[in-house]
Amino acid sequence: METPRDDPRFLRSREAIGGAARALLLAHGPGAITHARVAEHAGIARATVYRHWPRTDQLLAEAMATVPMPFFDAPGTPTRDWLVRELTALARQLDLHDVRVVATTLANAALWEEHMDARRAGFADLLTARLTEALEAAQARGEVELHAAPRDAAALAVGPLYYRATIERGTTDDATVAALVDHLGRWS
Amino acid sequence: METPRDDPRFLRSREAIGGAARALLLAHGPGAITHARVAEHAGIARATVYRHWPRTDQLLAEAMATVPMPFFDAPGTPTRDWLVRELTALARQLDLHDVRVVATTLANAALWEEHMDARRAGFADLLTARLTEALEAAQARGEVELHAAPRDAAALAVGPLYYRATIERGTTDDATVAALVDHLGRWS
Repeated sequence: METPRDDPRFLRSREAIGGAARALLLAHGPGAITHARVAEHAGIARATVYRHWPRTDQLLAEAMATVPMPFFDAPGTPTRDWLVRELTALARQLDLHDVRVVATTLANAALWEEHMDARRAGFADLLTARLTEALEAAQARGEVELHAAPRDAAALAVGPLYYRATIERGTTDDATVAALVDHLGRWS
Repeated sequence: METPRDDPRFLRSREAIGGAARALLLAHGPGAITHARVAEHAGIARATVYRHWPRTDQLLAEAMATVPMPFFDAPGTPTRDWLVRELTALARQLDLHDVRVVATTLANAALWEEHMDARRAGFADLLTARLTEALEAAQARGEVELHAAPRDAAALAVGPLYYRATIERGTTDDATVAALVDHLGRWS
């Protein structure tokens, strides 16, 4: 008989399996997320893992399930200072191995897996929506004359941090963060 | 007895295996590159695949072995026009599924696999070196007064294209390409 999805035993298994899959992902990469290794790491019978998560991409989804997107969520003023602070915080997060793992795994897995693609789109749309709202409000208040369309702001400002972190594997310094904010418009 | 690495039979096997691994990667993702599937797709005995490529990360390396890096390789003048042309060509490449696969697989696999990390670093360093040389020469000729350090040019100009293509899964238009080139300095 199928265990109900709100059964406490199922929820405990799910938490253990998510933790095990995440640990394997961070330490060894997505290829390490197999039913055998997740079951062993979580201390759960392999049959249980197969029953609820028959495919390995579902295990990868559990590994990525708790990734938050806290950036640009509460606009502050002056907007320029707030953008510099948020972008700096994001740059410091992208200095971390675990954050690089999550970002590149998401971008890669989304090319084939529908569930991951929905998650990728969710992150991208959220970032674009938050930046668009903040920049349009700042322009309405006369804080900035925008050079770029607000919907391009994420690519223009976050793109360089993401490339530096995941392709060049370096860090983005304060001067570059300030320059990126200044590329978005003329701040008064 | 071990087949010598310059033996024509070995080279034919290697080519078939590289082609099979690449086809599986593009269609199904890095997780599809297993000894069994590569052997079947290449029409080669599984034992042969295991003998020469005992680990799956070596098969992934074969799948990525022939990826070229043709961008920014032959500077033209005026430098601003050349940069716009090259960046536009790169943006059009990043519109393609296969190029997104290669870029995101490299960034992801490099976090755990030494061979992939060397390849990632090779791409990143080559791009930085080419842009640095072209921008410094343009500045010496009085074509531009650079705002950014030339070593940051790849992150500033290519980063937004890479983010747009692999996180937002959209395209970078001509106006954005022109703006990115203008962010690098004041062109005369």
